Amino acid sequence: MKHVYEGKTKSVYELEDGNYLLKLKDDVTGEDGQIDPGANSVIGELEGMGKASLRMSRYFFEKLNQAGIPTHYIDSNIEENTMTVKPAKFFGEGLEVICRFKAWGSFVKRYGKYVEKGQDLNALVEITLKDDDRGDPLITEEALEQLNLLSIIEYNYLKEITRKIATIIKEDLQAKGLELYDIKFEYGKVNNNITLIDDISGANMRVFKAEEQIDPLDLAKIVVK
Amino acid sequence: MKHVYEGKTKSVYELEDGNYLLKLKDDVTGEDGQIDPGANSVIGELEGMGKASLRMSRYFFEKLNQAGIPTHYIDSNIEENTMTVKPAKFFGEGLEVICRFKAWGSFVKRYGKYVEKGQDLNALVEITLKDDDRGDPLITEEALEQLNLLSIIEYNYLKEITRKIATIIKEDLQAKGLELYDIKFEYGKVNNNITLIDDISGANMRVFKAEEQIDPLDLAKIVVK
Repeated sequence: MKHVYEGKTKSVYELEDGNYLLKLKDDVTGEDGQIDPGANSVIGELEGMGKASLRMSRYFFEKLNQAGIPTHYIDSNIEENTMTVKPAKFFGEGLEVICRFKAWGSFVKRYGKYVEKGQDLNALVEITLKDDDRGDPLITEEALEQLNLLSIIEYNYLKEITRKIATIIKEDLQAKGLELYDIKFEYGKVNNNITLIDDISGANMRVFKAEEQIDPLDLAKIVVK
Repeated sequence: MKHVYEGKTKSVYELEDGNYLLKLKDDVTGEDGQIDPGANSVIGELEGMGKASLRMSRYFFEKLNQAGIPTHYIDSNIEENTMTVKPAKFFGEGLEVICRFKAWGSFVKRYGKYVEKGQDLNALVEITLKDDDRGDPLITEEALEQLNLLSIIEYNYLKEITRKIATIIKEDLQAKGLELYDIKFEYGKVNNNITLIDDISGANMRVFKAEEQIDPLDLAKIVVK
């Protein structure tokens, strides 16, 4: 197999059958020593993070596949910290699609004039560009269309499927006494169909229990017993 | 008359009949010594700037009123650098609505991964919050709605009227051998109707002649002979 990409939290290899192997690392992103899925810098290693991310991802990808949501997930090897996925084509060099149930993080940084931290949001969807140098800028439907990153039809589909997926995950967590504040997804095209890619781990969502944020390792322990 | 607000480029007074008087100043906003309508700091005074802004505003407001566009403009006194306007209610504490015909300024800063400086845009409309402390953040249709700043109907109307106004100004400038790259508007509600407010001056638009940017004072001389 061929090493094709080194990400902040995973290494990517191309397999001989054309599929890809993601090897999840123990690195976590954050800012000022705090784990923050929205941050762009690796702040250190958290032993067991790779395995926790993989177990969460497997759990949710299998749940989503059962619900008929198209995902890139094929299977996983917990021992090796790896997940086999279908090859996908990014939109541009990658978009992040965020679904918010509570105002937190960058949303409050931007709109603090009009929103309280923790205020309810109605599954609000935002899209940002994956662009570390420019701080992952927010982008509107119209700019996505004019820069040829998404058609209006693709934009509307992404918004709808993101709400659907986020709600499935929110309800799963709710049944475990947890509250999902926000979650970040990536999508790509597999055989020209818009498909959920990346991993679905504690590093990509903010989850609270009785107003206390649960760190990704503890979250994996609660979600996947 | 009562002084009610001191802005970066204008003072605002309430008149006894309920209308407002705007007194335009010679102050200009910019960054690193360069005039930049998108910037939030006053970088100095430019003698004659207030009068130039007022003459441009009068010219365009009269043109827009003739075209049936609702504006807050009543009349102006060039000697006194003042403009009488109808009282308007902001959306929240103020929104800026930008219409872009060429990629420039903050658009390129945000989306430089996918856009060249000077690339054509198709009257792309963006809305930002007037919030100096947070750098006038970009905001999407959905966030505007969920934060109760605009309804979907108001959002769509703002987009449409902005394109219409920007196109009238673009064509006027074009007839004078000038090219409008982008322009920034403010709107408010006058008697509950969405109305163009603020001023329409060189400080709110980027205009080029043969790929050279025209400064606001020279622009006023060309537009209003």
